[in-house]
Amino acid sequence: MSRREAIIGITMGDPAGIGPEIIVRFFQQEPGAAQAHILVIGDKGILQEVAERLGVQTPCGFRSISSPHEAHFDGTINVQDLNNIPIDQVIIGHAGSACGQASVQYIEKAIDLCMRKEIQAMVTAPICKEAMHLAGFQYAGHTELLAHHTNTRDYAMMLAGRGLRVVLVTTHTAIADVSSKISRERVYRTIRLTDQWLKTFYPQERKIAVCGLNPHAGENGLFGREEIEAISPAVALAQSEGIEAEGPYPADALFYQAQKGIFGAVVVMYHDQGLIPLKMLAFDIGVNITIGLPIIRTSVDHGTAYDIAWKGKARTSSLAAAVETASYLARRKQEEE
Amino acid sequence: MSRREAIIGITMGDPAGIGPEIIVRFFQQEPGAAQAHILVIGDKGILQEVAERLGVQTPCGFRSISSPHEAHFDGTINVQDLNNIPIDQVIIGHAGSACGQASVQYIEKAIDLCMRKEIQAMVTAPICKEAMHLAGFQYAGHTELLAHHTNTRDYAMMLAGRGLRVVLVTTHTAIADVSSKISRERVYRTIRLTDQWLKTFYPQERKIAVCGLNPHAGENGLFGREEIEAISPAVALAQSEGIEAEGPYPADALFYQAQKGIFGAVVVMYHDQGLIPLKMLAFDIGVNITIGLPIIRTSVDHGTAYDIAWKGKARTSSLAAAVETASYLARRKQEEE
Repeated sequence: MSRREAIIGITMGDPAGIGPEIIVRFFQQEPGAAQAHILVIGDKGILQEVAERLGVQTPCGFRSISSPHEAHFDGTINVQDLNNIPIDQVIIGHAGSACGQASVQYIEKAIDLCMRKEIQAMVTAPICKEAMHLAGFQYAGHTELLAHHTNTRDYAMMLAGRGLRVVLVTTHTAIADVSSKISRERVYRTIRLTDQWLKTFYPQERKIAVCGLNPHAGENGLFGREEIEAISPAVALAQSEGIEAEGPYPADALFYQAQKGIFGAVVVMYHDQGLIPLKMLAFDIGVNITIGLPIIRTSVDHGTAYDIAWKGKARTSSLAAAVETASYLARRKQEEE
Repeated sequence: MSRREAIIGITMGDPAGIGPEIIVRFFQQEPGAAQAHILVIGDKGILQEVAERLGVQTPCGFRSISSPHEAHFDGTINVQDLNNIPIDQVIIGHAGSACGQASVQYIEKAIDLCMRKEIQAMVTAPICKEAMHLAGFQYAGHTELLAHHTNTRDYAMMLAGRGLRVVLVTTHTAIADVSSKISRERVYRTIRLTDQWLKTFYPQERKIAVCGLNPHAGENGLFGREEIEAISPAVALAQSEGIEAEGPYPADALFYQAQKGIFGAVVVMYHDQGLIPLKMLAFDIGVNITIGLPIIRTSVDHGTAYDIAWKGKARTSSLAAAVETASYLARRKQEEE
């Protein structure tokens, strides 16, 4: 293709967490990455500092750029440098407002670059909600921030790894509150978002399995009626529009099948219903994908891990998987357009 | 040892379901079983009928016995013959009161034989709750019937397969009702039952992991307070008594670890939290074990499967696993005594 290569931007995440070190170690461990149109949106000083402290070899060093157009993918790590946090304001391993503010700015910059098509996808390193709140931002997390800045109403969280993709109807909701959030409309919207996403990115894998909420999917109303009143009608509505949705299925039997990769995605009703099977299959290489956004965003599936921050212990496997997924999605979208 | 070999009794289950055929096919597929002190508690006429209809070769046929003392483990299949259901009262694939009544009688007989130590363990083939209710029995299932007849107040459901054992704090409970059933007392009792069971049967594997209820185990009360108010105090109480309990852990991260077999058991808060991981690992070979009873009881982990009953399609793998587990548990208990 004559089209230019997709550029992937990695946001640095909370400077006091493991974000900076997993990024520099990612470039070290995958030497091709610095040639592969991958840049960082963060603070060059912090990246240099963490590389130095942990003895991470980055043979060609870092290049500060003020726009992706300035990037040269020649082995030097390109940093869209916001230069927004001096090292002495980073309290390693603790939530702080300066870091919270800096981490939000990386994300806002990345969204802006994605929306202006200067980069084709963003991959986010972990941020700390508490730090973000200390800095005065009231977002529940990355996803809400992304939805706000891209003016998106309908979105969902997908997690993917080893051929399994799960999409969550509810996310960080206490189990006691899950049932009240399971409505026909909400389940249907999640199914529809999933279908639209598969249509763009995995057009050969359109089959969607939908989990029940209750044990044995409620066994005909014996243990809960959400399947009868909300989930089945949502599946039926989706089917009436030509969406290849099936279910609701008992979750325990379903994931035995789904782990074989026979569905494009599985729509789950709550966090652990999807995350237990996903992490069993793909613990260190799970990728979080926000679906429904006008831009491509993937994320590592772990947090800032303050307890091991700047110690060189954090693994880069989830970041590598998130970058690889973002690259695939960006290429696929370019082909579509 | 001079002690006599443990005898395992398999109850026939609902005659209209897959119980009779998986039993005769089990003896066919494992020719050693009829020599291995395994007998059936059921109706010899039904077993002969299903063997004949499905063309299952049972070279030495069946022997009707009225007590385990009469059994000879010589290749003939010994049937503690209740002779309680004529074939013309079996409506194959449907719930009926005659079958419901017969299936309860097999269980009651097996319990009686266990309590009188004429057999050392019972393995149950599936029954149909609806059939049992049609026959006038109001038990919710096998477990309640067993608890009633053995006068047991504290018991729990364990599922085991491929090195993973999960014990359920709540079983067939709608997700909306789970939270209200999670109390310190209930979680503690489940942990204690699990420990007592491990002490008898797997004394080298006493470590018990306890799941949180909510995503990320509630993240310090952010999504639900059951971890703080019930589960952590239950774990602490158990620890204070010397029980090697740990947690509460986020379920998604925990099962990635638990699938490596590093815990004696995992205590889970609700059905799918334990059954999703168990079935992913051990779909066809899961064994249901009732812990806390004065007798040993294991069960297949599937139902009557009326839709495929008497068609020769049902798999015997879960029954074989349940028999193997029962045999191990019975030997282990004999060694203890």
